[in-house]
Amino acid sequence: MRVLGVDPGLTRCGLGVVDGGKGRSVRPVAVGVVRTPADQDLAQRLLGVADEVERWLDRYRPEAVAVERVFAQHNVRTAMGTAQAGGVVALSAARRGLPVVFHTPSEVKAAVTGSGRADKAQVTTMVMRLLGLEVKPHPADAADALALAICHLWREPMRVRLAEAEARAAELVRAHKARLAAAAKAAGTTTKKNETGARR
Amino acid sequence: MRVLGVDPGLTRCGLGVVDGGKGRSVRPVAVGVVRTPADQDLAQRLLGVADEVERWLDRYRPEAVAVERVFAQHNVRTAMGTAQAGGVVALSAARRGLPVVFHTPSEVKAAVTGSGRADKAQVTTMVMRLLGLEVKPHPADAADALALAICHLWREPMRVRLAEAEARAAELVRAHKARLAAAAKAAGTTTKKNETGARR
Repeated sequence: MRVLGVDPGLTRCGLGVVDGGKGRSVRPVAVGVVRTPADQDLAQRLLGVADEVERWLDRYRPEAVAVERVFAQHNVRTAMGTAQAGGVVALSAARRGLPVVFHTPSEVKAAVTGSGRADKAQVTTMVMRLLGLEVKPHPADAADALALAICHLWREPMRVRLAEAEARAAELVRAHKARLAAAAKAAGTTTKKNETGARR
Repeated sequence: MRVLGVDPGLTRCGLGVVDGGKGRSVRPVAVGVVRTPADQDLAQRLLGVADEVERWLDRYRPEAVAVERVFAQHNVRTAMGTAQAGGVVALSAARRGLPVVFHTPSEVKAAVTGSGRADKAQVTTMVMRLLGLEVKPHPADAADALALAICHLWREPMRVRLAEAEARAAELVRAHKARLAAAAKAAGTTTKKNETGARR
């Protein structure tokens, strides 16, 4: 399974492609960053990000796209730009019928370092170790994109199993409720019959 | 000039097309809302919004798109979804080479009611009056989209003039600095000549 991880942004948007093998084995395929000029029109910047992501999707043909879920940041303006960049990336993937999953920064950190509160340096170190990289991915957004892809490869099977278990549980609840309703109806019919019988 | 106004959102995305004529005259062309189911995948919801906006762009062929600029809202999750929806709309317009301008809610309110702090009812009332509508656009997002288009039609000429004035001012500053630099250089050369002369 091949995953494109995306650390969305307008100034820098990190992109990382990782192949997942048996068990927990992961292999780096490509890593990079898209930059758009701060003095450019917002729509043009979004177009710049989308076009480059389209090129990566064409070139590396990932089977899924993992995007960092944005929360409120110190700077609201930056957070909105980041959310918008993530939105256009998700759209490009959805247009190709690729599944898009959003992971929170703490899920990503926890996946690669074991702690949801790990710092950037720790994430980079683990990404290098897990992927067998000798050179530090630069900038940090590129390392984050690789971490996102790894997080997705490792979490996805669990997420799918969990969703299946939830669906089964919901089905059991539905069946149980249907049986209860049928029993109540049957009891109601019996009561009515008895009532009718009593009135005769 | 024809403008598509967009009040972005995932649950409801308001769309309104308005034609601007001479002076401040405005004419309604179309109004509507795109809805996407809350239980749908985020990427699929963004695709739903983008596809419908593409249909509107095909059908009404606006010359510009005005999108509401999102700020922090009470609910961060909602704000992010709104920003992402606005991002994919801007992308669709940019892909067609259409100018996309973001207006803040207070700019829109000020444009149609005269006050940046007007409430929703006041905005709707003025939108109906300005466009000669007899039926209230429903939901409020649809009225907001029309207000955005009107705001754009009225603000845009001013914005363009302001940008031109700023560009002219910047050019004057540049020319002045260049003259100063040339004068300083000439003075420097003269001083050197004198110095050389003095040494002889």
